[in-house]
Amino acid sequence: MAIIGNYPFLVEPFTEDATGNLSWGLLGNQLLRCAGMQAGSCGFGFEDMEQYHHVWVLARLIIDMDEMPRTGQAYNIQTWVTKVYHQFTDRLFTISSPEGHTFGHAFSTWALINYETREPMDLAHLPEGNIMDFTSPKTIPLKKAGRCRVTADCPMKSNPVYYSDLDINGHVNSIRYIQMAADLFTQEICSEGHSLYRVEVGFANETYLGDTLHFYTDGFHDNQAQVDIRRNDGKTAAKVALFFR
Amino acid sequence: MAIIGNYPFLVEPFTEDATGNLSWGLLGNQLLRCAGMQAGSCGFGFEDMEQYHHVWVLARLIIDMDEMPRTGQAYNIQTWVTKVYHQFTDRLFTISSPEGHTFGHAFSTWALINYETREPMDLAHLPEGNIMDFTSPKTIPLKKAGRCRVTADCPMKSNPVYYSDLDINGHVNSIRYIQMAADLFTQEICSEGHSLYRVEVGFANETYLGDTLHFYTDGFHDNQAQVDIRRNDGKTAAKVALFFR
Repeated sequence: MAIIGNYPFLVEPFTEDATGNLSWGLLGNQLLRCAGMQAGSCGFGFEDMEQYHHVWVLARLIIDMDEMPRTGQAYNIQTWVTKVYHQFTDRLFTISSPEGHTFGHAFSTWALINYETREPMDLAHLPEGNIMDFTSPKTIPLKKAGRCRVTADCPMKSNPVYYSDLDINGHVNSIRYIQMAADLFTQEICSEGHSLYRVEVGFANETYLGDTLHFYTDGFHDNQAQVDIRRNDGKTAAKVALFFR
Repeated sequence: MAIIGNYPFLVEPFTEDATGNLSWGLLGNQLLRCAGMQAGSCGFGFEDMEQYHHVWVLARLIIDMDEMPRTGQAYNIQTWVTKVYHQFTDRLFTISSPEGHTFGHAFSTWALINYETREPMDLAHLPEGNIMDFTSPKTIPLKKAGRCRVTADCPMKSNPVYYSDLDINGHVNSIRYIQMAADLFTQEICSEGHSLYRVEVGFANETYLGDTLHFYTDGFHDNQAQVDIRRNDGKTAAKVALFFR
């Protein structure tokens, strides 16, 4: 049990992206994995929750990197819960080198729901114990998310949900939405002139095998791109904002 | 240095595919990573080769799984070079549990080329030393690859190369071709009635940022599907055969 979990990683050869940095997809999935391990070490992990038919749902994620670790570099992910309110917890992350150099920060909001009734659970009254005992007031210097607004009438791209998008629950993997949004701006991400440094995601509705995803965007402007990923029923699956420098 | 390298892994939560198994994409990338580590431990790794302007190119890969490891299961990847001829080496893999239960096997062929001239190198006369000293006669029970033949005139799907497809060299990642071919048969892979157990890939030409990939297939027949992935210039990037039971 550690109120602030600390997990060491290394940028292994052939896990980098085309820019030679740790890829956004791998970093995102490692953040979620660290969240799961730290929650588990405090008795609030996915397995602990399952026995009460509770499940953590990721509602929001912001990743903001001053610098991405590169091939062969070691980095640590620190994570802790900072706030508990209604069905929500805010969980923070710091990504830094073993010597203490900060690569970046991340912020996430998770909701606890009953996976049969889909009802939100009150985190102040849990059979699992008091989650408030496992929070840290430690803060990170991270700008709040802005509003993701897309006005386009037609999708830039539509495609079915694919095998490689799905997680074990048969949903599209949360981090895959970031990859799919980033893929629309492949040229910008891979160009020498730009560098993707910040991603904001709001998760709205889950998507499954058989769904089609429609990607609405107004394009790349002022070093930003916003993508509204909608399902066939018109509802938003996730909104992703990409920030470049 | 170990003529037969042995690398332990664990199926970590949230790295599985929709069927609850270790995903084909992750397994494939781990096989390549183990190949790199074992070659490196013998002095023939990517970094060793780089100083002589030599690079290993994956020409063929077969993965044949009796069973895929599932969530929480430990597995070992054993790998060794079994044959050296002209510019080629054949490298074998066994995937098994720590208790010795075999999950499956894999076969790969790698060519060593000079990355400036693209000329094949003669592996019998290397400045790096004698690679023949680092082979094992150990065999695996693996059926040879058949011929991948596609007659379709029109692609089932075409898409540009995306950011998330690329590796650090700016090529489409070798294993990504398997994922992209498998994605065409998402329904079959995710259905209860079928199970993907074997993949055969022949790598022909590299693809880069700016290329478009065209997926030619005659569809799913007799529990098999063959996909010819072609570039804009009509040349095959990779041929992938998928085998289901």
